Amino acid sequence: MTKTIKIGLAGLGTVGVGVLKIIEAHGDLLEARSGARLVVTAVSSRDRNKDRGVSLDGMTWYDDATELVSDPDVDVVLELVGGSEGLARDLCTKALIAKKPVVTANKALLAVHGTELAKLAEDNKASLAYEAAVAGGIPIVKALREGLSANAIKRVYGILNGTCNYILTEMEETGGEFENILADAQALGYAEADPGFDIDGVDAAHKLAILTSLAYATPVDFDSVFIEGIRNVTAEDIANAKELGYRVKLLGVARRTKKGIEQRVHPCMVRKDTSIANVSGVYNAVVAEGDFVDGTVYVGRGAGEGPTASAVVADIIDIAADRHSATFGVPVKKMTDIPKVSIEEHRGCYYVCLTVYDRPGVIADVSAVFRDEDISIESLLQSGRSDEEAVPVILVTHEAKEAAVVRALSKIEKFPHSAAKPRMIRIVSL
Amino acid sequence: MTKTIKIGLAGLGTVGVGVLKIIEAHGDLLEARSGARLVVTAVSSRDRNKDRGVSLDGMTWYDDATELVSDPDVDVVLELVGGSEGLARDLCTKALIAKKPVVTANKALLAVHGTELAKLAEDNKASLAYEAAVAGGIPIVKALREGLSANAIKRVYGILNGTCNYILTEMEETGGEFENILADAQALGYAEADPGFDIDGVDAAHKLAILTSLAYATPVDFDSVFIEGIRNVTAEDIANAKELGYRVKLLGVARRTKKGIEQRVHPCMVRKDTSIANVSGVYNAVVAEGDFVDGTVYVGRGAGEGPTASAVVADIIDIAADRHSATFGVPVKKMTDIPKVSIEEHRGCYYVCLTVYDRPGVIADVSAVFRDEDISIESLLQSGRSDEEAVPVILVTHEAKEAAVVRALSKIEKFPHSAAKPRMIRIVSL
Repeated sequence: MTKTIKIGLAGLGTVGVGVLKIIEAHGDLLEARSGARLVVTAVSSRDRNKDRGVSLDGMTWYDDATELVSDPDVDVVLELVGGSEGLARDLCTKALIAKKPVVTANKALLAVHGTELAKLAEDNKASLAYEAAVAGGIPIVKALREGLSANAIKRVYGILNGTCNYILTEMEETGGEFENILADAQALGYAEADPGFDIDGVDAAHKLAILTSLAYATPVDFDSVFIEGIRNVTAEDIANAKELGYRVKLLGVARRTKKGIEQRVHPCMVRKDTSIANVSGVYNAVVAEGDFVDGTVYVGRGAGEGPTASAVVADIIDIAADRHSATFGVPVKKMTDIPKVSIEEHRGCYYVCLTVYDRPGVIADVSAVFRDEDISIESLLQSGRSDEEAVPVILVTHEAKEAAVVRALSKIEKFPHSAAKPRMIRIVSL
Repeated sequence: MTKTIKIGLAGLGTVGVGVLKIIEAHGDLLEARSGARLVVTAVSSRDRNKDRGVSLDGMTWYDDATELVSDPDVDVVLELVGGSEGLARDLCTKALIAKKPVVTANKALLAVHGTELAKLAEDNKASLAYEAAVAGGIPIVKALREGLSANAIKRVYGILNGTCNYILTEMEETGGEFENILADAQALGYAEADPGFDIDGVDAAHKLAILTSLAYATPVDFDSVFIEGIRNVTAEDIANAKELGYRVKLLGVARRTKKGIEQRVHPCMVRKDTSIANVSGVYNAVVAEGDFVDGTVYVGRGAGEGPTASAVVADIIDIAADRHSATFGVPVKKMTDIPKVSIEEHRGCYYVCLTVYDRPGVIADVSAVFRDEDISIESLLQSGRSDEEAVPVILVTHEAKEAAVVRALSKIEKFPHSAAKPRMIRIVSL
């Protein structure tokens, strides 16, 4: 007789509904691939009466999602509630203690409480699976945890937020300013009414913290991720990037250096002929570089009903087929607490845009500041000339230390001929 | 006490040596990720005395690889011998019958005897793993078998042979003809002295047959793969492709249509702004399109010591960690024998290059042939004019049936004003 896997689903938003649709559409296929019949036996959500376009017939309704766990007709708990605290955390904790495997799409929860939940999962020999939490439909968690497991990872980076990538792509294609493109994106449903979580880089940082832990077998450490969003990227920066042979992307980058691990989310200039530069619109992409496999690239949809539900159901299939992995690739007791390198310690090349009054000596003064900070300049372009208006000066530095660049810009900002706050974007060599 | 996984390795070529290097370099890391110590206890290869730059100390040597299987100190057998028959097949068969899991990088073996070996693996409850057989370091087997398991696959295609992609990339970049670029590639070690297996598309077809089985849960059917290599692609075709906004790539394509499954390997014109068009040189890439996840792209090194060994060791880690999957994603008894659609039935757009004497009426005659075969022409360009020399006529068709295009070209070839055999390249819309 075929085994049945009984699923308790908490959260009937976009992803939850997508999961119900896949299970309904592909019952036989999922059974062939998992060796078990997947049946949703219990559901919970905020509003019982909302029409979601899917049938909940035969499923037990729970007003309190945590009660799903005690239902003897629930083998696996899907946490699709969201948020790093409260119900989501309680539900996962309770399920793991009850030795019931958990599948979640909750990046915030994993980024903040990942190690503690991983420990709980191990102690109770229950899987905690979260493929959907990072880069939606792209099976990057599985790739890092299993596919590339023979490698020490040198660097992992990616476009982890579709909203930001959409906005930056549109800014490049239309020449528009951030605020206008954001408003359009909101009207089209590509950005939330309250967009801060996406455009300020927090969502990407959650995902990066998870990727870092997977790549380096180190406890999840969201607090040490340096985060800078895309609000301050201007149309001028994007045009300058193009001129210099780059594109601007919001990347999450985790890199092992001699001093430890860098974890950073910020706008980057990337050479326009790289794989990542050519990932446009709402797509996500991750590049994982291993010492034996070299670079591998993964591209796909990072959000949306179908792609995210695809990842959730793949996790259920793994559980149904008895395939288990440590939450972050290695057991918690085998993790190493690797020091994190602060952004001040970062070394790289920088694009700098100054806005100055075009007076004699301004370039000499600017150059002197960079020289005093031991920053070598690769190129400098003063693109306009005006006796009245301030003009932009575009610099690209050779590899320099972040702290020195920050100090240099702070000195230049105080110049009498400085007309606006200097801007900089880190150049990432890929 | 830590579990030990004892490995018997047959074949000390590039990949075998790579595996030894990874196990030596990453003992602790592999143990943390697999829960077991990986130890190579037995080896076999053709020449015992060759210096391979790695130590074989403490490993039992077997002149006959199949004897590895009976060694009680061998838990897992690595078949890195190659070839679809003989030793490789005997070794895998014997190991599976002995209920010892097998890891192989052997695409030919899987393409020809995959279903039979999968059955043997199931009957004996032993894994048969082959991540390295398709696209080298890219974990595409795992992605299709597990990562995308919630989806019905609509199409899977890719650049599956690095030698061909290197040659086509060089032809585009230098404007050189195939024979010259091939000779250069051979001198550089990117093409074999006997290059037929790669450039005639056989290697790509082996990999495609495996991908098809994984994607569609159907028995491997190498014999029904349509294969056309890159020998007849000319510098003129590549220049014309560029002019039309395309690049020429050798793709393996498996597609589900109403009539069944198409499996074909041939040079393709792909729009130059697609992901696959931008994969250059020796890199491989696979695109898998699922009904829920939509398109996902995987890029990386398709061959070489490190990447291929990375895939082999990942398979060993899965076995050590007790993660098992059916060989092709579903058990053999759950496979469906889906009809294969012959290339004659294929419908698509075609690039056609005719070489004709520029006499009055030639275009009218050509057009009449296409009309009679019910092929609609999207564009037609006669690029030169000469009373003496033959000139090229470049056509792009709208969607048409392959058999009709072949008939049309055969008729045109017999024209008195035809100066050379017409060429065509299929255009793939991605």
